[in-house]
Amino acid sequence: MKATPLFLKKDQERRLLAGHCWVYSNEVDTERSPLKGLEPGVPVELFARGGRWLGHAYVNPNSLICARLISRDRAQPLSPALLLARLHQALALRERLYAQPFYRLVHGESDGLPGLVVDRYGELLVVQFTTAGMERERGEVLAALEQVARPKRLLLRNDSPVRALEGLEQQVEWVLGDDPGEIRLRESGLEFLIDPVHGQKTGWFFDQADNRAALQRFRPNGRVLDVFCYLGAWGLTAAATGAEQVSFIDSSSEALARVGASADRNGLAERIGELLQGDAFDALRQLRDAGERFNCVILDPPAFIKRRKDQRDGELAYRRLNRLGMELLTPDGLLVSSSCSHHLSRDSFHRNLQQAGRGAGRELQLLYDGGQGPDHPIHPAIPETAYLKTAFLRVL
Amino acid sequence: MKATPLFLKKDQERRLLAGHCWVYSNEVDTERSPLKGLEPGVPVELFARGGRWLGHAYVNPNSLICARLISRDRAQPLSPALLLARLHQALALRERLYAQPFYRLVHGESDGLPGLVVDRYGELLVVQFTTAGMERERGEVLAALEQVARPKRLLLRNDSPVRALEGLEQQVEWVLGDDPGEIRLRESGLEFLIDPVHGQKTGWFFDQADNRAALQRFRPNGRVLDVFCYLGAWGLTAAATGAEQVSFIDSSSEALARVGASADRNGLAERIGELLQGDAFDALRQLRDAGERFNCVILDPPAFIKRRKDQRDGELAYRRLNRLGMELLTPDGLLVSSSCSHHLSRDSFHRNLQQAGRGAGRELQLLYDGGQGPDHPIHPAIPETAYLKTAFLRVL
Repeated sequence: MKATPLFLKKDQERRLLAGHCWVYSNEVDTERSPLKGLEPGVPVELFARGGRWLGHAYVNPNSLICARLISRDRAQPLSPALLLARLHQALALRERLYAQPFYRLVHGESDGLPGLVVDRYGELLVVQFTTAGMERERGEVLAALEQVARPKRLLLRNDSPVRALEGLEQQVEWVLGDDPGEIRLRESGLEFLIDPVHGQKTGWFFDQADNRAALQRFRPNGRVLDVFCYLGAWGLTAAATGAEQVSFIDSSSEALARVGASADRNGLAERIGELLQGDAFDALRQLRDAGERFNCVILDPPAFIKRRKDQRDGELAYRRLNRLGMELLTPDGLLVSSSCSHHLSRDSFHRNLQQAGRGAGRELQLLYDGGQGPDHPIHPAIPETAYLKTAFLRVL
Repeated sequence: MKATPLFLKKDQERRLLAGHCWVYSNEVDTERSPLKGLEPGVPVELFARGGRWLGHAYVNPNSLICARLISRDRAQPLSPALLLARLHQALALRERLYAQPFYRLVHGESDGLPGLVVDRYGELLVVQFTTAGMERERGEVLAALEQVARPKRLLLRNDSPVRALEGLEQQVEWVLGDDPGEIRLRESGLEFLIDPVHGQKTGWFFDQADNRAALQRFRPNGRVLDVFCYLGAWGLTAAATGAEQVSFIDSSSEALARVGASADRNGLAERIGELLQGDAFDALRQLRDAGERFNCVILDPPAFIKRRKDQRDGELAYRRLNRLGMELLTPDGLLVSSSCSHHLSRDSFHRNLQQAGRGAGRELQLLYDGGQGPDHPIHPAIPETAYLKTAFLRVL
């Protein structure tokens, strides 16, 4: 089957030539190569206006990002061979860096596989298809994954909200093996139980693993507060490193129950303070007004800026959150603060923290300026692949 | 002695209120409070145009940065008590984070002590005064350092070129104890000998210590090239972690001799390849043209952008250097690339790397995006305090 040609408007090939892989619908010369009528996900070949061949891609006429380039080699369209090559390349990196097979195995665009995310939990792979183009290759992708990583279990977690932008349905399905219930995972010497079917995203946030490991060096002591704690990975790391009493805040009582169970499992039950279920902002205000103070506050919220139009409100929310965190800190306390909004640049995040510091009347020293782990590589030409910022601040 | 008042022009207090501590000479209302005639280094009190008190500072009418704020508490001018408090605060941070007393103890503005840099090598402190204001307090600063850190030796390395901007002389002087010759230092399990009198800066680059430790995880293997190697800390770390043959490039034959000696001392002599003395760019071109290839190339150059006017040339130099590094890499090689130019933003550095990748025809994955260690804290309101960028890139 010959791929449909897609011609860009004048000068619209620049981003692609600079290394990016997205085409926006307003960049396509739709008079010459209509998007309408193309079936979502079908392969296309991208051309500049003057006829220069740019790459193999797949298309989605219903999405703002109407095409994603997948190969710059004309002899290599999207095929089982290409999938295998990219997966081997992705696996080689992780096998070099990780002693145990627990990591993000495929990070979409950064691994040359836009629309595909795969997290590995030992013999289980949890797979997310986030574009119609990758979904269309589902059979080939799963076969290639089986061949390269030899999993015993394959779970589709196709319930990410981003699928709606591509017109894809929500779906969770075991495609190989059956539900093992819980998966055991070790991080920084602690053992956690993960629920890949019902947990957030694929069940665990591997992207913060290195930052949590870095926290050990900062040896938080005294009282610690872990906000948006989910399964408690941050707070339990603090407890295992010497914190005397760690409290947790999350909106999910089920997550908090798992924190308690993990504390028991790791012999840390005595170091657990309160498990506070509710809105994080409300809980922080109540703690502040009750005069509670902590030596370390950890803020790892969900993305407050999911879309460009959330920018202003989202930045305000980060500022409010960080200010509350600082107000709860003792003098010379440690604030751990994250943002996973790729719309918030690292510079803006630092500025936001500084403004929160002024609001709280506190002087700051930024001691550690972390990002996503190496199993979530950044593609330097695709700023959207760099999303995680984790700052450790001394709050004087 | 009453401090001279220094009035700013309309709205020029904004940067200070946002947390910065510098005043530029064009921001001062010199009609109302003449800068001319003020002795370099004398204390001043800063006021906004409307009379709002802003802070205690010291002045230098001969410098573009004509005043640096040192206290926002009206009851706390620059005094021995303030110096002691700031030094105790600086020491507390390092003692919490470092098992051994080898680190930057005072990092200027970030530690509330603009114009002062102190590196600690066990019982030796190496001190740099970089402004007339701090130089004027020399006696008090040294006394406070002795009281807080109890060193056996104190060396002034007042031979930094930035002193010229403040009209200060070059001077290297032992003010406590005598020259021990060499200082022994351990980093990442390796032992190095430092020459604090003649070595670069204070003898060692502590700011890269965490990044070098991070390299261990990436386990560079095969052939490694350490460019601008100085004492060889990067390359010897690679050798100790599994690299089979490490070559070094530096302009100083003395530095290269020390690399060889350190290799012997650490039992790594068999892993040393060539010690190439000369211009790094020339040496890289020669290696490339001779068909030499490496599994890992490390580029840790001096700042190519020392002043704003060097921006264009400096960015070109970084791009040329990184392209050469990439051209020398085998497929799936590891590039370690640093910039210590604070004029080059992190985003610009990444863009520069990406452009180098395009020039070399190589695809990149940014795996690690490091900065200066926590003994070089960043003041979030003072962008100039964030200068070091160290990227680990997979070069496909």
